[in-house]
Amino acid sequence: MKNNATAMVFERVGEPFSTLPLELPELRRGELLVEIGYTTICTSDLHSFFGRRSSPTHSILGHEIMGLIVELPREGLKDFYGNDLKIGDRITWSVYAHSCNDIMVKKGMPQKANDLFKYGHEKINKEIQLSGGFATHCHLKEGSTVFKVPQNLTDKEAAPLNCTHATVAGALRLAGSLSGKNILINGVGMLGLSACAMAKELGANKVCSMDIEDTRLIHSREFGADIVLNAKLPMPELLESIKGNGGIDVVIETSGAPVAIENSLKMMNIGGVCVMVGAVYPQREITLSAENMVRRLLTLKGLHNYIHEDLGSAIKFLSEAKNKYPFETLVGKEFPLNQLDAAFNFANGQSCYRVGIYPNK
Amino acid sequence: MKNNATAMVFERVGEPFSTLPLELPELRRGELLVEIGYTTICTSDLHSFFGRRSSPTHSILGHEIMGLIVELPREGLKDFYGNDLKIGDRITWSVYAHSCNDIMVKKGMPQKANDLFKYGHEKINKEIQLSGGFATHCHLKEGSTVFKVPQNLTDKEAAPLNCTHATVAGALRLAGSLSGKNILINGVGMLGLSACAMAKELGANKVCSMDIEDTRLIHSREFGADIVLNAKLPMPELLESIKGNGGIDVVIETSGAPVAIENSLKMMNIGGVCVMVGAVYPQREITLSAENMVRRLLTLKGLHNYIHEDLGSAIKFLSEAKNKYPFETLVGKEFPLNQLDAAFNFANGQSCYRVGIYPNK
Repeated sequence: MKNNATAMVFERVGEPFSTLPLELPELRRGELLVEIGYTTICTSDLHSFFGRRSSPTHSILGHEIMGLIVELPREGLKDFYGNDLKIGDRITWSVYAHSCNDIMVKKGMPQKANDLFKYGHEKINKEIQLSGGFATHCHLKEGSTVFKVPQNLTDKEAAPLNCTHATVAGALRLAGSLSGKNILINGVGMLGLSACAMAKELGANKVCSMDIEDTRLIHSREFGADIVLNAKLPMPELLESIKGNGGIDVVIETSGAPVAIENSLKMMNIGGVCVMVGAVYPQREITLSAENMVRRLLTLKGLHNYIHEDLGSAIKFLSEAKNKYPFETLVGKEFPLNQLDAAFNFANGQSCYRVGIYPNK
Repeated sequence: MKNNATAMVFERVGEPFSTLPLELPELRRGELLVEIGYTTICTSDLHSFFGRRSSPTHSILGHEIMGLIVELPREGLKDFYGNDLKIGDRITWSVYAHSCNDIMVKKGMPQKANDLFKYGHEKINKEIQLSGGFATHCHLKEGSTVFKVPQNLTDKEAAPLNCTHATVAGALRLAGSLSGKNILINGVGMLGLSACAMAKELGANKVCSMDIEDTRLIHSREFGADIVLNAKLPMPELLESIKGNGGIDVVIETSGAPVAIENSLKMMNIGGVCVMVGAVYPQREITLSAENMVRRLLTLKGLHNYIHEDLGSAIKFLSEAKNKYPFETLVGKEFPLNQLDAAFNFANGQSCYRVGIYPNK
């Protein structure tokens, strides 16, 4: 048996990852083999590993991935824009694969396709074994959507593109034009910082960040926040802080906290739009006044994952704006793949936005 | 004193209208004088008159109005499309007037202009006395938006255009394309029936109506409803009824009932959009799961009144579709202006959708 790949397998909550040697796959039509260059541990990986959400096992976690193409199928493959892919290309790809004919794809919501396959979330199966980022290789299924990584982006910067930055690009797409508008970013973790910078680049007038942690708020200034608000302040003080600047027209809600969503609706100007992306875990229901929404022409939207175009927008944004914002510093510590347990335990301490995993040297 | 106009004045809740003879006004720049042809009593007129909402007094109620131009200012005036207006034109106009430079107009929300003047809602003042529909004449303020009424529409059909039908056109604009989609109309009073018919004409696949009254539901079939649902049914039965038809993609919520809004969010397909227009009176807050909205990509929008383009769309719709749906029958009974008290008392019994007021013979 030719053991050319190694995967770190998540078998059970609370147990260390197990090391699984695997043979490299024979590619079928539409498939790709990637040698992983870098993977960042996303918060949802931590939720799975520490049992805060239920995930299928045995699986290979990790979906914020980038890498180099090491094998292509005989007929070749193209990226999202129709360019030929070749061995050695540095790529990222949408976190999910799907068939083209699915009804949800036709409805413009490929991320909800009925035959969805999500990297870093799948039970290991015979057809695709190398399906996650915490491995030496990733086996891309037919129906994956691939993008080349621009040369000016480091591996460390590129890894979070296909989750964090693409989701933020999707949220800002749903928010509509930001030109001349004030935007509030609720929660300035990894998603929120990306949203501050992307909103600034999209022409927002004032970028306002809100969080319960002052250290995060201070950090958000480096990512374009003009005004910072501690979410623990009473509503009259929050309203006073934004009034002089013209109020809030758009909210990107990354915290998922019910009170933050409720307060957003109270802080928005007439005609305001709030896009929620953070509420992906069970919480109490939110309460709101329908009359307030009607009389003030408010909109509340939910977004889960993103469409492929959003990943394209995110890549363009990061490549163009990387020198303005310190994105690389968001990976606070790095570990080699064979120290994945240590990496997860470190990351769970939440002392940094992302922890990076690089191949064993 | 030349007493050429008569207005029925709303002075105090629970008291009969008083008859006020008035001199016809001298027109200033941008103003128009209209001889009222027909006014329908809107539900909000009933709420004001019977004290279910607070309204300024003394005032002339009535905003679902149409009439004939009897005087134009010296410099002339144009309709919304830039056509010259002339004496004798049959017209309707947006329920509100505003200056063109207002910041809310520039933001695309003229209905929320800071200097908004709403026909049928204003305290009688010296500048504009004839500001409502329950009078012989209406004095149109500068900054009013006027549309000619197509010849094929009767006065009775045309009166509700600038409130009911224009609001529905606005809600459907916010809902986006209906092509191939299933739509649920929550509440089939006047707004809901208009929404059934307009959704059908806009290419909706299945039009589904929901109400607590079976007689209304049956009636909604004449206005395009393919499926009717009694809102009192338990949720599993409601879901079962729509499942076989492909579920619900769009909801137009006209009832304002919190439980109806909450249920709408539970009935919508992934990617669904719910536009609320009915929640314009105080009610308990609604509760919803933010996680459900995020994971299912749901949108909830509020709309109050409409933009001028919506009134244009409504006129076009009614003129083109009037032979397909029995809109004229929605005016269940008519009274002359001098029997306005009797008309209001009759209308409050809710035995018909609209009661019409025509000039004294």
